[in-house]
Amino acid sequence: MKTAERRQNLKESLVSAAERAIEAHGLGGLRARALADEAGCAVGAIYNVVADLDELILLVNSRTFAALERAIAAAGKNREAPQTSEQAIERLVRLSVVYIDFAAANTHRWRALFEHRLPAGSSVPEWYLAEQMRLFSFVEGPLRVLQPKASPKRLALLARTLVSAAHGIVALGLEEKLYTLPLTSLREQVTLVVSAIGRGLVSETEPPGRGRAAKG
Amino acid sequence: MKTAERRQNLKESLVSAAERAIEAHGLGGLRARALADEAGCAVGAIYNVVADLDELILLVNSRTFAALERAIAAAGKNREAPQTSEQAIERLVRLSVVYIDFAAANTHRWRALFEHRLPAGSSVPEWYLAEQMRLFSFVEGPLRVLQPKASPKRLALLARTLVSAAHGIVALGLEEKLYTLPLTSLREQVTLVVSAIGRGLVSETEPPGRGRAAKG
Repeated sequence: MKTAERRQNLKESLVSAAERAIEAHGLGGLRARALADEAGCAVGAIYNVVADLDELILLVNSRTFAALERAIAAAGKNREAPQTSEQAIERLVRLSVVYIDFAAANTHRWRALFEHRLPAGSSVPEWYLAEQMRLFSFVEGPLRVLQPKASPKRLALLARTLVSAAHGIVALGLEEKLYTLPLTSLREQVTLVVSAIGRGLVSETEPPGRGRAAKG
Repeated sequence: MKTAERRQNLKESLVSAAERAIEAHGLGGLRARALADEAGCAVGAIYNVVADLDELILLVNSRTFAALERAIAAAGKNREAPQTSEQAIERLVRLSVVYIDFAAANTHRWRALFEHRLPAGSSVPEWYLAEQMRLFSFVEGPLRVLQPKASPKRLALLARTLVSAAHGIVALGLEEKLYTLPLTSLREQVTLVVSAIGRGLVSETEPPGRGRAAKG
């Protein structure tokens, strides 16, 4: 086995070990010693393949992005792109519910996406930002149906806003901090908020007196 | 000075010390030794006035709730209760912007409201939940104007949903995690989402063809 291949294998093993540790105990459960033991290497060898544990966490998060993307793609399978406002709103609601279910089923890995902070002075790598942006693009499609005249910049802002709003509902709900709500109630809340936003975006662009989500 | 009074004074000093420590360094910066030094007591004396550091954090959070309530009250001063849908939506947007500005100006204390988790098995005390509920009531008033026929249970759900949505925008924005946005953009986003939700709630309860926020 060549050195490059061996390094790649060790890297994958370490990412998998970190992924399991995060899923089991959250970010706080990550220990270099335990990861090295599980990947069958010396503690120092970790730093031959990644710069630090932060890089390892970004790589775990990258897998989480990919898993979320698969869940989203599976939910949209065999469905045509939305054409009408109703269809677009329905799609947005569906995406939000997929997001809730994913967060509920993978709470620790989902939390790691938001709780992990890079040390002061480091910035998030480009590839990581690109993966996030790809997830936003699923939301931009239906939003374009609701606001066909919106500029790409405005669509990007709308998408981020909608994702943030849905995120807030999931975050506070799953934290069981501000209040404890079962998953069905979270689905109800996110449906309520996302469809209200959808209708609100339609009514914003329509002539007065045509506020309901209109066909086409 | 009586014992009860002395205990109360020490408790206040400790809460103030914890509040300063959290504001300066976040929850992770809380150390019993440093708090005792600052309050002028022995480390063991802390546990004469509070059960543990978790109780101290809840007391700091209680002050944060009160500060947020003052900011909200100041923003609503000399303003009449909203009567029309437009006024109600405007009030909700205003409340959200106050929330954003508060979070941006007191980031660490605001984060402590959400990041602090009680140890497994403990539950949040009643007085703490009551303080949270009082904050929600500021949102329920305008929502009642938008959906006059909503049951109290539905209004409470709407209020929690709206607060969570606004929270998500602030949380992701201030974390500078999913993306970096300046405060003005956060205000723009929250205005966009809260007014869209408001219009959406109005259009939900109106007969078809009257989707715009209507007078009265």
